[in-house]
Amino acid sequence: MGRVEIPAGSAFGLANLPYGVFAPAGGPPRAGVRVGDQVLDLAAALEDPVFAGPSLNPFLAQGPDRWREVRQRLTELLSGPDVPERALYPLAGVSLLLPVEIGDYVDFYASEQHASNIGQLFRPGAEPLMPNWKHLPVGYHGRSGTVVVSGTPVTRPQGQRKAPADDVPSYGPSRRLDIEAEVGFVVGTGSALGQPVGLGEFAGHVFGVCLVNDWSARDLQAWEYVPLGPFLGKSFATSVSPWIVPLAALEYARVAPPPRDKPLLPYLADDPAQPWGLDLALEVRLNGHLVASPPYATMYWTAAQMLAHMTVNGASVRPGDLFASGTVSGPRAEQRGSLIELSWGGRDPLALPDGSTRTFLEDGDEVTITATAPGPDGARIGFGEVTGRILPAR
Amino acid sequence: MGRVEIPAGSAFGLANLPYGVFAPAGGPPRAGVRVGDQVLDLAAALEDPVFAGPSLNPFLAQGPDRWREVRQRLTELLSGPDVPERALYPLAGVSLLLPVEIGDYVDFYASEQHASNIGQLFRPGAEPLMPNWKHLPVGYHGRSGTVVVSGTPVTRPQGQRKAPADDVPSYGPSRRLDIEAEVGFVVGTGSALGQPVGLGEFAGHVFGVCLVNDWSARDLQAWEYVPLGPFLGKSFATSVSPWIVPLAALEYARVAPPPRDKPLLPYLADDPAQPWGLDLALEVRLNGHLVASPPYATMYWTAAQMLAHMTVNGASVRPGDLFASGTVSGPRAEQRGSLIELSWGGRDPLALPDGSTRTFLEDGDEVTITATAPGPDGARIGFGEVTGRILPAR
Repeated sequence: MGRVEIPAGSAFGLANLPYGVFAPAGGPPRAGVRVGDQVLDLAAALEDPVFAGPSLNPFLAQGPDRWREVRQRLTELLSGPDVPERALYPLAGVSLLLPVEIGDYVDFYASEQHASNIGQLFRPGAEPLMPNWKHLPVGYHGRSGTVVVSGTPVTRPQGQRKAPADDVPSYGPSRRLDIEAEVGFVVGTGSALGQPVGLGEFAGHVFGVCLVNDWSARDLQAWEYVPLGPFLGKSFATSVSPWIVPLAALEYARVAPPPRDKPLLPYLADDPAQPWGLDLALEVRLNGHLVASPPYATMYWTAAQMLAHMTVNGASVRPGDLFASGTVSGPRAEQRGSLIELSWGGRDPLALPDGSTRTFLEDGDEVTITATAPGPDGARIGFGEVTGRILPAR
Repeated sequence: MGRVEIPAGSAFGLANLPYGVFAPAGGPPRAGVRVGDQVLDLAAALEDPVFAGPSLNPFLAQGPDRWREVRQRLTELLSGPDVPERALYPLAGVSLLLPVEIGDYVDFYASEQHASNIGQLFRPGAEPLMPNWKHLPVGYHGRSGTVVVSGTPVTRPQGQRKAPADDVPSYGPSRRLDIEAEVGFVVGTGSALGQPVGLGEFAGHVFGVCLVNDWSARDLQAWEYVPLGPFLGKSFATSVSPWIVPLAALEYARVAPPPRDKPLLPYLADDPAQPWGLDLALEVRLNGHLVASPPYATMYWTAAQMLAHMTVNGASVRPGDLFASGTVSGPRAEQRGSLIELSWGGRDPLALPDGSTRTFLEDGDEVTITATAPGPDGARIGFGEVTGRILPAR
């Protein structure tokens, strides 16, 4: 027994306590909480078998009262002198695994700047935003089976692509491989089929927040996506950060979303006194070089609105479901969360410090997305990172 | 011990032997095979715990050699005098449950007639088929968490809809609630991330076939679907039949797909000697009245092409994944598998024998889809049914 050491200024102090799944060298996967640069084995520390399995799902399904109780116990334990040392592992010595078994994965399109930019690039000359965009958070289902944890290499996808000047499509490796810097929301408590989850019920259903890189093959996507939406252009891999920051750690990050230009139907009309905008500062690095700083606070639609919309037709959610925000892009050029926006469809290559330039990703490139949020007393809440390196096509 | 009784002419004879999950009165769910009008409890009959759980997934994951072996053993057992009576249950006395735990659910759009009809109805005046349609099987991800077994009531969804003449969207119950008569394919053997499943590997990965009703709210769909595809218009419920007919039972149903108008890229160029068109005769009944007879043999894209396309970018599949064909519509008016086609967008109401008419579904309506396929020696292979009744919106 002893006190846990937390480096001064750590973004993983007691105000954060994000949950993940880890495996010590040679040991089976289990749930843990990150504190400073260590991981606390929850099944060992709390003597509770709900944390002994390879995903957080059983704990998530226990619901918000239980989440509060465990957070309270962990705060007390980790503040005191009786932290069981056998339950602490140095972060550097463990493997971090996919923290949840994901049921359905939904991706939204909630940044006005991103949707406008993509509209201009994919449909030049047309109105950038579709008529529905300011009336509902546009979203679609993605592939849950190819969601991978940060660090998993991403093989360049192959498939059909057809440039406007081509007569017929050709087959081969994607030439326009891109990232999308996003924020993900992990459902804890499920809902019943036929029963919408209202705006006010958000925190009772959503457990926490992670970072998402929704890798995108723009050439595959542009050819396939009409009329049923993106499919193979997105389904080859979606990377998530290993730590789920609980909503309870984000109380100081809650901000009002941007003003809404159109009146909202009642099921989407959020309460200004209970805002679910989030002041998360994202950073995107390409081979270590900062290429974008997307501000999540600029997102037009909040996660509470996404959940209310996703279930308004009676669709149910399950513990472990993941929904993501869509690319986070702010109004300024350096705030754009995808390469297709940063390079404006390839027209304006990015210059990297090593003298090379990029429009889209090259084999061997590594992309890392990080984020922090304000916490209490000037502390920062860290999200860790979601990273991935591009392997050549097979 | 005794002989199993199979009614003469049963579509569930020894040539079929479809798999499902059932619960006897008061008993837990378990895997079974339908034979005649009875269900054989597989864990009891074969003394194998892989069948004792509430889904077929553990058995599906064992792969095609094992599927063959079990089919062989069942054929021998059920042909002989030593069928254990304690393992047989009358079908009428058991509950039929969702047979698989579904990972990802993908819906295709593989009928040329359906895609052309929907194109004309959703985009009047434009070319009905998009330029990509004959180059690849268009598909998108649906919501796996709201796939329900036949018999589950379907609550009329609510949501946003905006007719072209309206200035702004309104909220309320769908006024254009529809069906889609489809055929579903259940993945048995998973694949590795990054590794496409080629056309010739279809039968090594896909275990069997079921019926699907992909309920659709056309008014929600029409307003939401640009640019990222259908979402709430489809996600409230998708019904599946309880019996998975193994591919091995469909050898006599294999037919050549229709001639292809455009040359196909090699990964989609199927071998005429190994055709995966299927001669399934679907029937759609509304309140007991036959309203459509869609012929699956007219589908432009085969399930082998769907799987090859779905994985060509390296996306993996998992045991229990479901992919469906999209609405089956033949060239003749009475062969259309959705009400929006049968009523031509509501212009031509259907007359029912009770004197009522229908454009879209009314509360209390019940829709049942059935199908049969040719088997050996003139036998028919039955799929059973997928049925559902509409409950009023909450």
